Amino acid sequence: MKKLSITILFFLLAFCQINAQQAKYVFYFIGDGMGVNQVQGTELYLGELEGKIGITPLQFTQFPYTTVATTFSATNGVTDSAAAGTALATGNKTKNGAIGVLKDLQTPVYSVATWAKERGCRVGVATSVSVDHATPAAFYAHASGRGSYYEIGKDLYETGFDFYAGSDFLQPQDKKNPQAANLYSLADQYGYTIARGYKDYLKKSKKADKMILFQPEAASKSDRSSIPYAIDRGKSDLTLQEITRSAINFLSKDLSKGFFLMVEGGKIDWACHSNDAATTFHEVIDFDNAIKVAYEFYSQHPDETLIVVTADHETGGFVLGKGPYELNLQVFKNQKVSESGFTRVINQLRSKTNNQVSWEAVQQALKDNFGFWDKIKLNEKQEARLKTVYEQTLKNQQVKMEKSEYAQDEPIAAEAKRIINEIALTGWTSGGHSAGYVPIFAIGAGAEKFQNRIDNTEIPVKIAEAAGYTRK
Amino acid sequence: MKKLSITILFFLLAFCQINAQQAKYVFYFIGDGMGVNQVQGTELYLGELEGKIGITPLQFTQFPYTTVATTFSATNGVTDSAAAGTALATGNKTKNGAIGVLKDLQTPVYSVATWAKERGCRVGVATSVSVDHATPAAFYAHASGRGSYYEIGKDLYETGFDFYAGSDFLQPQDKKNPQAANLYSLADQYGYTIARGYKDYLKKSKKADKMILFQPEAASKSDRSSIPYAIDRGKSDLTLQEITRSAINFLSKDLSKGFFLMVEGGKIDWACHSNDAATTFHEVIDFDNAIKVAYEFYSQHPDETLIVVTADHETGGFVLGKGPYELNLQVFKNQKVSESGFTRVINQLRSKTNNQVSWEAVQQALKDNFGFWDKIKLNEKQEARLKTVYEQTLKNQQVKMEKSEYAQDEPIAAEAKRIINEIALTGWTSGGHSAGYVPIFAIGAGAEKFQNRIDNTEIPVKIAEAAGYTRK
Repeated sequence: MKKLSITILFFLLAFCQINAQQAKYVFYFIGDGMGVNQVQGTELYLGELEGKIGITPLQFTQFPYTTVATTFSATNGVTDSAAAGTALATGNKTKNGAIGVLKDLQTPVYSVATWAKERGCRVGVATSVSVDHATPAAFYAHASGRGSYYEIGKDLYETGFDFYAGSDFLQPQDKKNPQAANLYSLADQYGYTIARGYKDYLKKSKKADKMILFQPEAASKSDRSSIPYAIDRGKSDLTLQEITRSAINFLSKDLSKGFFLMVEGGKIDWACHSNDAATTFHEVIDFDNAIKVAYEFYSQHPDETLIVVTADHETGGFVLGKGPYELNLQVFKNQKVSESGFTRVINQLRSKTNNQVSWEAVQQALKDNFGFWDKIKLNEKQEARLKTVYEQTLKNQQVKMEKSEYAQDEPIAAEAKRIINEIALTGWTSGGHSAGYVPIFAIGAGAEKFQNRIDNTEIPVKIAEAAGYTRK
Repeated sequence: MKKLSITILFFLLAFCQINAQQAKYVFYFIGDGMGVNQVQGTELYLGELEGKIGITPLQFTQFPYTTVATTFSATNGVTDSAAAGTALATGNKTKNGAIGVLKDLQTPVYSVATWAKERGCRVGVATSVSVDHATPAAFYAHASGRGSYYEIGKDLYETGFDFYAGSDFLQPQDKKNPQAANLYSLADQYGYTIARGYKDYLKKSKKADKMILFQPEAASKSDRSSIPYAIDRGKSDLTLQEITRSAINFLSKDLSKGFFLMVEGGKIDWACHSNDAATTFHEVIDFDNAIKVAYEFYSQHPDETLIVVTADHETGGFVLGKGPYELNLQVFKNQKVSESGFTRVINQLRSKTNNQVSWEAVQQALKDNFGFWDKIKLNEKQEARLKTVYEQTLKNQQVKMEKSEYAQDEPIAAEAKRIINEIALTGWTSGGHSAGYVPIFAIGAGAEKFQNRIDNTEIPVKIAEAAGYTRK
């Protein structure tokens, strides 16, 4: 009997060996600011849109492995995106604000993307914000301060991954040394082709050895810091789904090498810094749409592909419920623009009327863009609040823009956003980050490593184990 | 080669069959109101107590399987404890307020505890609040409204599990029919022995056929609705750990039958309804201490024991961080009583001074119980706020008690609690529940079933699969 058991064990081990395939193709999706409530809120919103109480699941929440991770940094209970990015990229905690260095701000640490590169894989790093922003930067750069955008841009070239994408460089010119070469001009020297928009990518990608995909020039001229919010998107705008599709296409040029691709949904965080729930839900859906492209790839290579979806931290202290035991998320379907998008609407009204915007015009804009008075009834107090803000800021021109981390908005836009949040029964605690768990969802080769509650620094280590990378 | 593969597969299946042992002993721990931030906050608090940034893990967060569950009820985006309890117990969504019936409020549905009973297992249901409260009731009772405490108490006897525990019956007498037998008097008829406190349990348990464990009479006289908060506990108070130990001891009388035990940490929710963070952390630690007793049992029977820890919903919209990228949770170590405990301190001062309480006496009480001025510096505004509340409510006797779901507190206690939360940088959104994910942690036989994001109704079904119960 004992002999039989040993035989069984032998075969079992052999069987496991055969089946425990390594992840040749790795997708690492990071939803910036995407805490558990951002995910659950989006699903409950989608459920309400279908007229039900309950969720309509996203693609990534249906992955077979789910767990949560802690996010504190080396120096702060509440992390920023630089320290969290460094943890998710390199497996090391660092000081808030630091990119790819330990908390001494000097010792460089290397990311799972570089481990993949050393293994011989093709590597891509992509985001919906500027390519030198904290999260993507943590995968290729080393900087004591996340604000050194020019130096981070140089590191992008030095590290030399196959594919980068984002809205643009945030600071193509060295502010401290205006004589230094601008970042665009370095592309040639390092063998990179820069494409502007999806069509341009398709045109240039075949001949390109290494590629940087940015949004079209016109979009960068209006805002180089990120691609537009999904809720505000125009037809010609580059999307995170197009970015992901381009990345996969480019990295697939030689599938024999395998690849590693990090894609950041960078503007979930921005919407949450603004406490703008409708815009947040649209960003999470947009992020899910990008993940769907990876899932298509996974479906074709299920035994060799790993997809990990997580977040760097929660933003805004977002809460689903404000006391009454109900939600009213479906009202957000009437919000047609982000808070910043509505600021632009108001700006256009200001320009058009030589700054003599009438209450009627503002009401019409609120009706068109938030559904107020029309689809969403306001009570007297809410109407009075809007009127008061109108009189102060548009009639009497005492405008003090409402500042959040990444935006300065018209007070009437901020008030409209607060009111629709009240009606939806969603709460926000702050304009900063919080220390809640972040969710992890995983599917594919090695996904079973994500079963227990872990620290964010363990995620790249587990990916490396799944893919057979050597940690450096 | 093909033949070899089939042989391997055969042996593999045989091996799996041998090893997939059923859960003979099942522990189902429900932290009422214990959302992800209540857990993570407690661990970060314990970390800060050790002078570090980061967590000191609880026992249950180290279990090998972690995931999250959705909690909406059949009728509400935000569930109450009755509908959530029914989901967690029976696998069915129902209307908020309903216990063990479908949302038609008539069709009875049966709990995993009854499935265990039908399988022949010994069964226990225990809580730190009254035994007829929503969560425990969902495991044995059927009522259209959770407030029918007398009828729920009768169901407890009718269902006839082996062991029940809680603070007491909330309504031993039928209010509608004062002639009806009171619930204590039914004990004999149904073969139950009632023990009062842990020592009394030890004395009576051997001879008892079926057991109900309540807190000592004196404690019930002062508050029958729950055992005291861990932070307020006196030496003679019954604890959730003692309840759990008693339950295991009683159910272990005949281990050959296996057992199912549900233990609720019922007052995490109460502390969160009061937005009292220090008291919440102590309740979560206390809940973990009860789980440790089950873990001891698991350690002795690892192949046949399943422990599942989850929550029914989040309470309070609790957020770790209020804007600045830091936390200051260690200040809570200076809070020595709950908000309600401090209300009692103030009441004693009122009695002792014939309602002429001086500001100095209040300051001393705040110093002793919150560390204010002594261990925790207050700014001028915070001191002024306390002084204002003092003058209004203690000097001028205009007291409007602050009401939360389960407490009415002195305004000075509420203000002190708000100030210490501010200093700790913890935020609360409401006095009600929220719709965030709840965490699930599992260890032991069948724990691997808890890998993906699920709905709360799936939890009892998975437990039944792990234990081989037949769903009814």
